[in-house]
Amino acid sequence: MTTPTIEWTGETDGHLRLLDQTKLPTETVVLDCETVDDVWWAIKKLSVRGAPAIGIAAAYGVVLAASDSHESIKQACDHLATSRPTAVNLFWALDRMRRVADEARDSERAERLLAEARAIHAEDAEQCAAMGRYGADLFEQTLAKGSGILTHCNTGALATGGDGTALAVLFELHRRGFAPKVYADETRPLLQGGRLTMWELMQRGVNATLICDSMSAQVMREGRVAAAIVGADRIAANGDAANKIGTYGVALHCRAHGLPFYVAAPSTTFDLSLSSGDGIPIEQRAAEEITQPGGVAVAPEGAEVYNPAFDVTPSELIAGIITERGVISPVNQQTVAALIG
Amino acid sequence: MTTPTIEWTGETDGHLRLLDQTKLPTETVVLDCETVDDVWWAIKKLSVRGAPAIGIAAAYGVVLAASDSHESIKQACDHLATSRPTAVNLFWALDRMRRVADEARDSERAERLLAEARAIHAEDAEQCAAMGRYGADLFEQTLAKGSGILTHCNTGALATGGDGTALAVLFELHRRGFAPKVYADETRPLLQGGRLTMWELMQRGVNATLICDSMSAQVMREGRVAAAIVGADRIAANGDAANKIGTYGVALHCRAHGLPFYVAAPSTTFDLSLSSGDGIPIEQRAAEEITQPGGVAVAPEGAEVYNPAFDVTPSELIAGIITERGVISPVNQQTVAALIG
Repeated sequence: MTTPTIEWTGETDGHLRLLDQTKLPTETVVLDCETVDDVWWAIKKLSVRGAPAIGIAAAYGVVLAASDSHESIKQACDHLATSRPTAVNLFWALDRMRRVADEARDSERAERLLAEARAIHAEDAEQCAAMGRYGADLFEQTLAKGSGILTHCNTGALATGGDGTALAVLFELHRRGFAPKVYADETRPLLQGGRLTMWELMQRGVNATLICDSMSAQVMREGRVAAAIVGADRIAANGDAANKIGTYGVALHCRAHGLPFYVAAPSTTFDLSLSSGDGIPIEQRAAEEITQPGGVAVAPEGAEVYNPAFDVTPSELIAGIITERGVISPVNQQTVAALIG
Repeated sequence: MTTPTIEWTGETDGHLRLLDQTKLPTETVVLDCETVDDVWWAIKKLSVRGAPAIGIAAAYGVVLAASDSHESIKQACDHLATSRPTAVNLFWALDRMRRVADEARDSERAERLLAEARAIHAEDAEQCAAMGRYGADLFEQTLAKGSGILTHCNTGALATGGDGTALAVLFELHRRGFAPKVYADETRPLLQGGRLTMWELMQRGVNATLICDSMSAQVMREGRVAAAIVGADRIAANGDAANKIGTYGVALHCRAHGLPFYVAAPSTTFDLSLSSGDGIPIEQRAAEEITQPGGVAVAPEGAEVYNPAFDVTPSELIAGIITERGVISPVNQQTVAALIG
């Protein structure tokens, strides 16, 4: 990755540079965020996306208010928390930043906030590497070398502070010579699979094939894949996992074909305050994402649209959750509590 | 429908006018087909699509060669048969035209071929009306008034010589005051659901909501629909039904949520020479349909793509097949043979 997904330039008077993911893969544009509101918009518009990356970007966003009053910093945290509702990493990262803002003396506050954001970033990179190792170990033990593996949305270096969550597993398998054949769902409406996942896989030389979301069941029926692996935006205490819309359908297709369906997510994605996925708020997004992809009208003017950005996969459809602490399998309240609680 | 989907202008020296469906819904363009090859391309490029409409267009296409030698007419039939491989109505219509070409004396051949194409067209319109009535009867008996009903791809007046197959049922329910709430899958890659189905439903005042294909499972989980109904391009003797890619996934989602999944198709869509869906050829289409929707690149250059245009739904997932002769339910070799054999 020549242009980093998220980069803080300079010291406490620096600013946040984001790779604008809305422009990929045709253009590589860097977005300079100099204010808290710049970061809010970058998250809202999905210039930066992916649960862990959103958390990291928000943390750096707080640093942009670090020279302001303690009260303004808290307001910045509150504002950034309204950018997107589903990914819990956002709230988790902002909670860490709030705590530092509360504890630090005025004179050291800016430095300590920057150090905390950098720590969140670095920890995430380490967690990605650990998920990659645990997941690759699991797949090497359970799947034949060269197996097809289906994924949905983007969960790689563009979605995290490191190599990714689900994609980190595939990258690690590739490094180990397992030679996975990856089928990437394009992931309508915003095509993160076609634009971002294919770009990352091709850059790293992974065998990758793009399909439409509607093709995953057929790809399984034809025996082209042996498993599916996805990321998550929030996981409840019982293991129910919210992720990009379409994930639940993939999980149902896996069950119908007797294939294991895995989730890879760091412990920061768990929200143990929710007993099940029913409590996870689902973001509703603009109709134009569906009716005007790339600015081209593909539906009649005035068409009614329903556009939930996420769905929830019940834990009974999940063969295992790969975390930086190890693999949760089977997935239920007890096993989640044992590793995460 | 102000501009007809398929229209023959004039008599035996006339030509075929098609509503160019690749331009809908933003432009209403009429395509004048003056040669057999014009019709071949119109079918290949999907300017005219939908299993029954393909059959009708191909039949008129043969009329464009009607003043040529008997041998040239047979060659025209052979050529048109290569335009698309999956929909069996194409081969069925061309067989009817071949038979007429063989039987007719030279002096009457052109007139008889035009009469046959018009008969195929008119019969299809009647079959659509009958499917609408049988399907609406079934839904009125089994679903609550105002129920949500999901559909995939386009199966309306744009896909047939009449009101449609699956959409004819929804139109008839609308006429009867059942007030169906239709959820239309956009149907990637070519977006026939967003571009064509939404256009037809909105023109007729049917309550319609557009979703991405990846949302159908979630829409069912939220209890928004009580059933799904789709068309078919070819149905084997045991009831396995080939239809637009993504249909099989919708059927799996229905099963997972305990919802009935229906197919509406005329008897001309059955291919009793095939014992099961395994024998149905699946058309593979160009990568650009996925990588460049509307000419805009949404995947990295050189991305590997898998683009099957159809899938096969096994009969055990189908609650009933609505034909112009009545409803086949349950769906198996015996019940298919009883109504169609």
